Amino acid sequence: MGMIAYAKAGGEMARVFRLLTAAVGMLAIVSVSADSADDLTPPASFRNWYHVNTMVIAKGSPLFEAMGGMHNVYVNSTGETALKQGGPYPDETVFLVDLHEFTISDGSYVEGPRKATAIMLKDKKKYASTGGWGWQAWVGGDPAKPIVTDATKQCFECHQARKDHDYVYSTYIP
Amino acid sequence: MGMIAYAKAGGEMARVFRLLTAAVGMLAIVSVSADSADDLTPPASFRNWYHVNTMVIAKGSPLFEAMGGMHNVYVNSTGETALKQGGPYPDETVFLVDLHEFTISDGSYVEGPRKATAIMLKDKKKYASTGGWGWQAWVGGDPAKPIVTDATKQCFECHQARKDHDYVYSTYIP
Repeated sequence: MGMIAYAKAGGEMARVFRLLTAAVGMLAIVSVSADSADDLTPPASFRNWYHVNTMVIAKGSPLFEAMGGMHNVYVNSTGETALKQGGPYPDETVFLVDLHEFTISDGSYVEGPRKATAIMLKDKKKYASTGGWGWQAWVGGDPAKPIVTDATKQCFECHQARKDHDYVYSTYIP
Repeated sequence: MGMIAYAKAGGEMARVFRLLTAAVGMLAIVSVSADSADDLTPPASFRNWYHVNTMVIAKGSPLFEAMGGMHNVYVNSTGETALKQGGPYPDETVFLVDLHEFTISDGSYVEGPRKATAIMLKDKKKYASTGGWGWQAWVGGDPAKPIVTDATKQCFECHQARKDHDYVYSTYIP
C-alpha cells in the first residue's frame, strides 16, 4: 500500500490536514497548476462502487496525525477491469477513499463516522500535468469543504512514486 | 459491532475455528437442525455488492485466535434498503463477511489474502428455526471447504442477541 511513499509526503500535506483535522489517501508536492481540480465534485453514488480494499492508519503510524483513520477505497465501474490488471486506467476512472474515524473496542477496530473523502479522476488531456489524474478531497465528504487547492503539491508528488501503476497506490486483492 | 455478544460465542465456535485456522463473523450455539445450511454456496459476485463496513479484529482481542482479521462486510442489493433502516430484511437478503488476513506496517493495518467467507441468507420459512436466516462459511471462500455443520450451534446463538435488528450485527454507517 505504499507506506514508504506515503511517508514522504511531508510537511505541506500534514499542515493542510492538521488545519482541517481531516485526512485522505492521495496527496503530495511538485510544481504545476494549482486549480486543475476546481471543477471536481464528490461522486454521489460511490458507496455502490466496487470496494477495492481497506487500510487502517492507527496511532503507531507517523501518518496518524495527518491521515489517521479507516481508509475504505472504492473504484467506479469504468476502472474495475484495469484495477484487476494493475492499470493503466481509462479516462473517467475514479478512485475514492472514504476515510472514517474508528474506535478500538476490546482489541477490535470499529468503523466510525466519515472524516473525509478524496478522489482521483482520470482525464489524460485535462490533467496531463498531474499524471493524467484530477485530484480533490472534502472534509466530511462535504462538497462545500474542498481541501485540495494545489493538486500538484498536495497530491501528485506522493503519487509519482507509483508511476508504474498509473499513479495508483491501491492494489486488487482477489 | 456487538463485540460483547461476539465474545459470548464461547468454546464451540472457537474450537471449530481453531481447527480450521480460519475465521468468520457469524456464529453461535443453541439447539435445532444441524443441516439447514447444506445447500448454501458462496455467492460468486459479492465483491460487487454494497460494502457495509469494515472491522479489524486484532491481537488485543479475545476473539483474535478464533476470528482475527479484517472483516469486510457486504450485503446484496435485496437487503440494501433494509440495512439503511436497521432491518428487518426481506427474503433473499444475503450478508457476507469477506475475512482477510492483515499485516501491520509502520502502524498501518494493510489488507492481505482471504481467510474465509461467511454468509447469512434470509428465508423466513426455510430457516425458521434459526431466526429466518441460513448460515454458512467457507475456508478461503472455497465452496469445497464449508465450516458450518450446525448453524444453530455455530451461528445462531450468538446472533440471537441481535434479535431487535433481525439478527444482524452490522450497522449502516452513512
